Amino acid sequence: MSTRTETDSMGPIDVPNDKYYGAQTARSLMNFDIGGEKMPLEIVHAFGILKKAAAITNTKLGLMDDATRDLIIAAADEVIAGTLDDHFPLVVWQTGSGTQSNMNVNEVISNRAIEMAKGEMGSKKPVHPNDHVNMSQSSNDTYPTAMHIAAITVIEDVLFPKVKLLRDTLDAKSKEFMDVVKIGRTHLQDATPLTLGQEISGWVAQIDLALKAVEATLPQLRELALGGTAVGTGLNTHPDYAKTVADEISTLSGHAFVTAPNKFAVLAGHDAFVGASGALKQLAVAFMKIANDVRWLASGPRSGLGEITIPENEPGSSIMPGKVNPTQSEAMTMVVAQVMGNDATIGFAASQGNFELNVFKPVIAYNFIQSVRLLADAAKSFNDNCAIGLEPDRKKINEHLNNSLMLVTALNRKIGYDNAAKIAKTAHKNGTTLREEAINLGLLTGEEFDAEVRPEKMVGPLPAKS
Amino acid sequence: MSTRTETDSMGPIDVPNDKYYGAQTARSLMNFDIGGEKMPLEIVHAFGILKKAAAITNTKLGLMDDATRDLIIAAADEVIAGTLDDHFPLVVWQTGSGTQSNMNVNEVISNRAIEMAKGEMGSKKPVHPNDHVNMSQSSNDTYPTAMHIAAITVIEDVLFPKVKLLRDTLDAKSKEFMDVVKIGRTHLQDATPLTLGQEISGWVAQIDLALKAVEATLPQLRELALGGTAVGTGLNTHPDYAKTVADEISTLSGHAFVTAPNKFAVLAGHDAFVGASGALKQLAVAFMKIANDVRWLASGPRSGLGEITIPENEPGSSIMPGKVNPTQSEAMTMVVAQVMGNDATIGFAASQGNFELNVFKPVIAYNFIQSVRLLADAAKSFNDNCAIGLEPDRKKINEHLNNSLMLVTALNRKIGYDNAAKIAKTAHKNGTTLREEAINLGLLTGEEFDAEVRPEKMVGPLPAKS
Amino acid sequence: MSTRTETDSMGPIDVPNDKYYGAQTARSLMNFDIGGEKMPLEIVHAFGILKKAAAITNTKLGLMDDATRDLIIAAADEVIAGTLDDHFPLVVWQTGSGTQSNMNVNEVISNRAIEMAKGEMGSKKPVHPNDHVNMSQSSNDTYPTAMHIAAITVIEDVLFPKVKLLRDTLDAKSKEFMDVVKIGRTHLQDATPLTLGQEISGWVAQIDLALKAVEATLPQLRELALGGTAVGTGLNTHPDYAKTVADEISTLSGHAFVTAPNKFAVLAGHDAFVGASGALKQLAVAFMKIANDVRWLASGPRSGLGEITIPENEPGSSIMPGKVNPTQSEAMTMVVAQVMGNDATIGFAASQGNFELNVFKPVIAYNFIQSVRLLADAAKSFNDNCAIGLEPDRKKINEHLNNSLMLVTALNRKIGYDNAAKIAKTAHKNGTTLREEAINLGLLTGEEFDAEVRPEKMVGPLPAKS
Amino acid sequence: MSTRTETDSMGPIDVPNDKYYGAQTARSLMNFDIGGEKMPLEIVHAFGILKKAAAITNTKLGLMDDATRDLIIAAADEVIAGTLDDHFPLVVWQTGSGTQSNMNVNEVISNRAIEMAKGEMGSKKPVHPNDHVNMSQSSNDTYPTAMHIAAITVIEDVLFPKVKLLRDTLDAKSKEFMDVVKIGRTHLQDATPLTLGQEISGWVAQIDLALKAVEATLPQLRELALGGTAVGTGLNTHPDYAKTVADEISTLSGHAFVTAPNKFAVLAGHDAFVGASGALKQLAVAFMKIANDVRWLASGPRSGLGEITIPENEPGSSIMPGKVNPTQSEAMTMVVAQVMGNDATIGFAASQGNFELNVFKPVIAYNFIQSVRLLADAAKSFNDNCAIGLEPDRKKINEHLNNSLMLVTALNRKIGYDNAAKIAKTAHKNGTTLREEAINLGLLTGEEFDAEVRPEKMVGPLPAKS
Repeated sequence: MSTRTETDSMGPIDVPNDKYYGAQTARSLMNFDIGGEKMPLEIVHAFGILKKAAAITNTKLGLMDDATRDLIIAAADEVIAGTLDDHFPLVVWQTGSGTQSNMNVNEVISNRAIEMAKGEMGSKKPVHPNDHVNMSQSSNDTYPTAMHIAAITVIEDVLFPKVKLLRDTLDAKSKEFMDVVKIGRTHLQDATPLTLGQEISGWVAQIDLALKAVEATLPQLRELALGGTAVGTGLNTHPDYAKTVADEISTLSGHAFVTAPNKFAVLAGHDAFVGASGALKQLAVAFMKIANDVRWLASGPRSGLGEITIPENEPGSSIMPGKVNPTQSEAMTMVVAQVMGNDATIGFAASQGNFELNVFKPVIAYNFIQSVRLLADAAKSFNDNCAIGLEPDRKKINEHLNNSLMLVTALNRKIGYDNAAKIAKTAHKNGTTLREEAINLGLLTGEEFDAEVRPEKMVGPLPAKS
Repeated sequence: MSTRTETDSMGPIDVPNDKYYGAQTARSLMNFDIGGEKMPLEIVHAFGILKKAAAITNTKLGLMDDATRDLIIAAADEVIAGTLDDHFPLVVWQTGSGTQSNMNVNEVISNRAIEMAKGEMGSKKPVHPNDHVNMSQSSNDTYPTAMHIAAITVIEDVLFPKVKLLRDTLDAKSKEFMDVVKIGRTHLQDATPLTLGQEISGWVAQIDLALKAVEATLPQLRELALGGTAVGTGLNTHPDYAKTVADEISTLSGHAFVTAPNKFAVLAGHDAFVGASGALKQLAVAFMKIANDVRWLASGPRSGLGEITIPENEPGSSIMPGKVNPTQSEAMTMVVAQVMGNDATIGFAASQGNFELNVFKPVIAYNFIQSVRLLADAAKSFNDNCAIGLEPDRKKINEHLNNSLMLVTALNRKIGYDNAAKIAKTAHKNGTTLREEAINLGLLTGEEFDAEVRPEKMVGPLPAKS
Repeated sequence: MSTRTETDSMGPIDVPNDKYYGAQTARSLMNFDIGGEKMPLEIVHAFGILKKAAAITNTKLGLMDDATRDLIIAAADEVIAGTLDDHFPLVVWQTGSGTQSNMNVNEVISNRAIEMAKGEMGSKKPVHPNDHVNMSQSSNDTYPTAMHIAAITVIEDVLFPKVKLLRDTLDAKSKEFMDVVKIGRTHLQDATPLTLGQEISGWVAQIDLALKAVEATLPQLRELALGGTAVGTGLNTHPDYAKTVADEISTLSGHAFVTAPNKFAVLAGHDAFVGASGALKQLAVAFMKIANDVRWLASGPRSGLGEITIPENEPGSSIMPGKVNPTQSEAMTMVVAQVMGNDATIGFAASQGNFELNVFKPVIAYNFIQSVRLLADAAKSFNDNCAIGLEPDRKKINEHLNNSLMLVTALNRKIGYDNAAKIAKTAHKNGTTLREEAINLGLLTGEEFDAEVRPEKMVGPLPAKS
Repeated sequence: MSTRTETDSMGPIDVPNDKYYGAQTARSLMNFDIGGEKMPLEIVHAFGILKKAAAITNTKLGLMDDATRDLIIAAADEVIAGTLDDHFPLVVWQTGSGTQSNMNVNEVISNRAIEMAKGEMGSKKPVHPNDHVNMSQSSNDTYPTAMHIAAITVIEDVLFPKVKLLRDTLDAKSKEFMDVVKIGRTHLQDATPLTLGQEISGWVAQIDLALKAVEATLPQLRELALGGTAVGTGLNTHPDYAKTVADEISTLSGHAFVTAPNKFAVLAGHDAFVGASGALKQLAVAFMKIANDVRWLASGPRSGLGEITIPENEPGSSIMPGKVNPTQSEAMTMVVAQVMGNDATIGFAASQGNFELNVFKPVIAYNFIQSVRLLADAAKSFNDNCAIGLEPDRKKINEHLNNSLMLVTALNRKIGYDNAAKIAKTAHKNGTTLREEAINLGLLTGEEFDAEVRPEKMVGPLPAKS
């Protein structure tokens, strides 16, 4: 491997020639040979925006010349675009302030800018990783800022659209099947009827509640730590810096951000992620309910509930037709399990700040972004490969409905509670239908029965009196 | 024990004469001899409001006569006031829909109303537990409604006032100590200075964020399931019932409630509690940070950080003065641990709904209310017994500040980076102060040093240029 | 309220005359008005054993006279027997070392012993709470010792017998139904057959694994901290004390204990509870599977799986027969949810030790004992009120089995894979049985079909060749 | 991209020419575009062992010819060696039984064997992915078997050696510093002394307990599901298959395995992973305590505790010497946070089995292996980059010790409790040392003080009387 020498305050160290990163990144690779979980690229790209915004702001405030700014912008744009992703090799399990990932970004932008300026990589000229790329910043305020930028971006650009896709598909199914009357189930036991559309409307409502819950946590994620520098006081920054750079980040990212009113709180705590992860867990819980209902309703083909059918996407049993494993439900519920654990990790990590710094930043970022990403992808996969193909098995639905003993409640008014109960008990004992026994017992004719027992009249409040 | 006979559809059963509950409660006591955790009284009292509101609403809608209504109101008022608390013996670990606690309330109100009407207890006349007290209701919609009423009430009436007490005390301390310059600490290592008031302002900001986070989850807790009856369709209710009864509950409770727009979602899921518990966890995380900072800053008396003192509330060491165990921090952090676990329970439980019902209602209610209650009480206890007595140890604070090597950064401008670093390195090697070595090395006089190294100038952004 | 004055090193304080506790307990009641969760009585009773064992050991080692010992024993015996339970009013949320509960025990034993000796309560003569009852002890080693005594006792005396009751019931059911061939289900989809006895044997095996897992964690719970005193060095103890008192505790409790080989680890960490709680969670997970299988297999009565019936313990629907809500499953699965959360609390709390002490002792004890107690009680309740009455619905089981398309695999050998698949596909398309279509397609006669398709031959490995 | 056509029961599909996988893998890639978390390679390699063992066993039992076996062995050996890692592209979020990863292995081994045999890839001749590579197997029993093989392997080959490295380093440090007397700390407050060696011995003991805890969970992980096939009955297997193949796996892997006595339990539950993860959490908790103690003891350089020094591995502050951020502690505690969350995921996932199958297998495997891997790597990193360089700062240690007021307890015997307390109180008030005030108060001479107050005599039980 061809190498060059880079230096930091601890001295020289070899780095691969084909990489833009420098000494501190190389040192981190040596010192933290732990697992394989890389710093999420969402964080890296957010850092690109941050560094660009800082350069622009520093120039506006008279601290940086235009040439340096333009070089930083050019290199930062490549970070943002993802073309330099291979130059960010660090793992999550590093310094708890994310210092080394901040330095990784500083080094890559510095060296790429130097390259563009036809300088010598590692020379730190004309663009110095610390003095220029990191100007008016500290790891302690940049890393949490990158966390917030990444979180808002992945929620607004990825999670919301993908979940809404699923939500809208289900909403359309709900409307389509609003008249398909079916048996209700409480305690897993047969209950009074509702329509399949109503049942699905409950899923839609659960998703809507969860999306609102996530939305309600975004204001705190929009508050940026940048400008707090090392301990939150803003030492070494221009008085206008914090607000200006937050505005710049909003402009560059296309997402709304503000500067955090109290910087001490957002360096030493990442509590906003706890609340937001709780809202993600609410979404996960809704997905669990939906995915479970789908697989149970699709259970069978012969000995399950079988009230809906779902697409067959991969070989089930080669010899047995109709065995469609609910694999999308399975993938989704595994994602739910992951999100639950991630939430526990985030809560633990966020609780462990001391004084002016919380040093569990990377593990919070990693878990939060993983939760968002998995929920989003699972929603899309479930939508494309399952929800859009969900259809009622009307035959089975009617069979269950007509067999049900719960419909007997409709007869109370006509023949009285005691007679109605008698019909039900006889039907239960004989394994027959209510209709059969109503006739056998001489309490109603078939026509009378059909006139009274109309499940479609049992799926809402009492009709208003005419 | 003197007993009377009560009956339900399974037949007669003996109940103690001095209790108002009836057959189904007695049966539950026999069938669920599990643990000792009682149904939270907050739920019982909320049920009182619910039953009263239902009676009023049923009468308004022409379904109940005034006399029955008034008897129910009279008995319900006693439930609300807590004077019948001894009549609610059931544990959390019962039917997952909370049916038996709903019946417990129905039975107690029925029998107490009968007693008031000089009737015979157990006769179900003139106030029937099902036909009257439970009119237009199902366990499936009443229990979640009671959960929501109880949650909003305990958050707004108990949590917010108690937490704000602590928040305001800390805010006052922050202002009081805004000029007490002290060393900052990041990675537990000495860092650039800030003021004690700034440090405490971070705690206040964390609490403010958490309160906002909890506040943001309340709209979903204000949505009531009542009117959904057994499966969410509202079967057997008047079309105006759901909205009217929600309004009535708002009036009676003094808290804002609305009827849930989709009843299927709120019978089959309790997702709102997941998001709200996540916000409570955010508050817990903030408390963990604060309680930890307090005990570390108060550590000592000789070999700790010792920058603040806290009240001595109970005997520490009898022979060793100054050993003040931070017991309020300990109680509070144990509460935090509990809230974290409760959140895991709530998430698990809420994820397990099937079809038209989630049958983990009581365990969700129990854990949620415990979390709220403990956070509230711990905040008040911490406030009264610790925060209000928190004082800086100015001698120790100054000692740390003046000893600090981080202040050397203030000399960069005057003598250049290299000379400044030389002073710091020599002081570190010799275990001396910067001032001593600055003089020894002949780089500055004492007066010059004092003029340059002014920590109070290092606790904010650069001064705006004059 | 009639009171007397008690004193501690902070001065005098009033305590109720009808209580044996003294000044430090009274002070704790004032300082920790948090929640209502009392220190578990299992801990109090374990403290009784501990104090008795310490008195005996101190006397053996020549540190205490016989008269004092005998008074302590007499009072401690009442603590152990539970007759003084009302004198232990403290909550979990107190000093994190459990100091105040240790003092509560010291004070109660002292005052009760004084009363027996006709002395004056509060005089600390002739039995002093610190000098005598707490001799050779510190809160820091007594509280964890009480935790271990309580944990072993409640596991061995309560959990194991109650869980084994359920295990043995299920084992008997498994044997009884070993020949009831039924359809298997994987992915909730129909699969190859097994017997109901085999299915239940899986539940028994899960419980057996979990019990073994719990058993495997007991050795670490048998190791006692007593003898470490304040920081683990054993300062102020006789060199033989630690071992002797552990032996004494074993004798008095009837459970095996040893002195911990390293006292520093067991004052500063309660890691053994983390491993043991993990094993309890394994048991909870097994219970979740069993309770879920039971309620799903019992679902119906018409539109569920309906392959087993379970006892009806309380009124279901008054009008609809056969709707038996699986309430015991619901109580059990709520317990599971609680145990999962408790495990999270325990892990968090146990991780937070510093230097020579972990100050999350009471919250660990509270959650661990709650988990054990709930699992035990839920097992007994589920056994008595559900498992013993579990019966197969042979008609439904056979219907599912005979309808199944999976049995077609049995025809491969006779008519080849392609013909077999053709039968299955036709039956699936027509909603008919394999037998019908086999005959319709002219591939086998009814007799041939019956001879080949014998589900009872499909519930084990291939028969060994004769 | 050059492609070839592969087929499964759903028809033809294009796969890249440079990959050995076939149709079902390709289909999974399309259907599960979720996240980026790949199936752990430990699982893939374990599958290699499994497939090889199955081929050998099938041949032994007369079901497979030697030529086929040898081809499978040759290809499986490459899977085991890791040279085919690039051919396993599937993510964790797939079918919950891991079916698609099982098929991925079957397809890769089939095609690689075909290639070796100069056949045509995709032709399934002469080595068929299902008929040969998957002979006597089902996804339902192979995937859990691979989970167990991978778990035991990574624990015994990676976790134990790496953790023992750290344990042994700390044990050596404990012995080396056994005579370095220092102040103890309880409640973060100064307490009676102990030696640094004793303090570290507590860390060693915590690790030892945790390793024993993990060890105690291994027997259940050694039990293999293989031979249960689709539902646990062992349908389509030779009666000797299960035992023989477990023996073969033991031989090939070099780790001990047995066939699970009850196959139903180990297909439908993965409870063993819950208990084992609990033990991993115990290890994590021990690591948390150690990493925290290290960073607090190393805090400073001026305003912290500063009793130990740790290696400086990367640049801290460029201008301030002595600021060594405890980055290894930070990485380790972030790993702890991850392990806690993973444990929550595993518990949730394991609890969700139904009937004959748990369909959360991949998420359990992923989290469990990640926990093991991270704990192992963090232990090694912490050992190499921190623990081996841990040294006492004897000056600071002595300063704390000699300043301590707790040592006054040593004077009780000589001058009585009251005089001793007087010295301590005066010293506390004046901010002086005990020695100074003892002399000032005229209670002891300096020589007498030095003779009595000997901290090194306070670090163990009372000396046995001579």
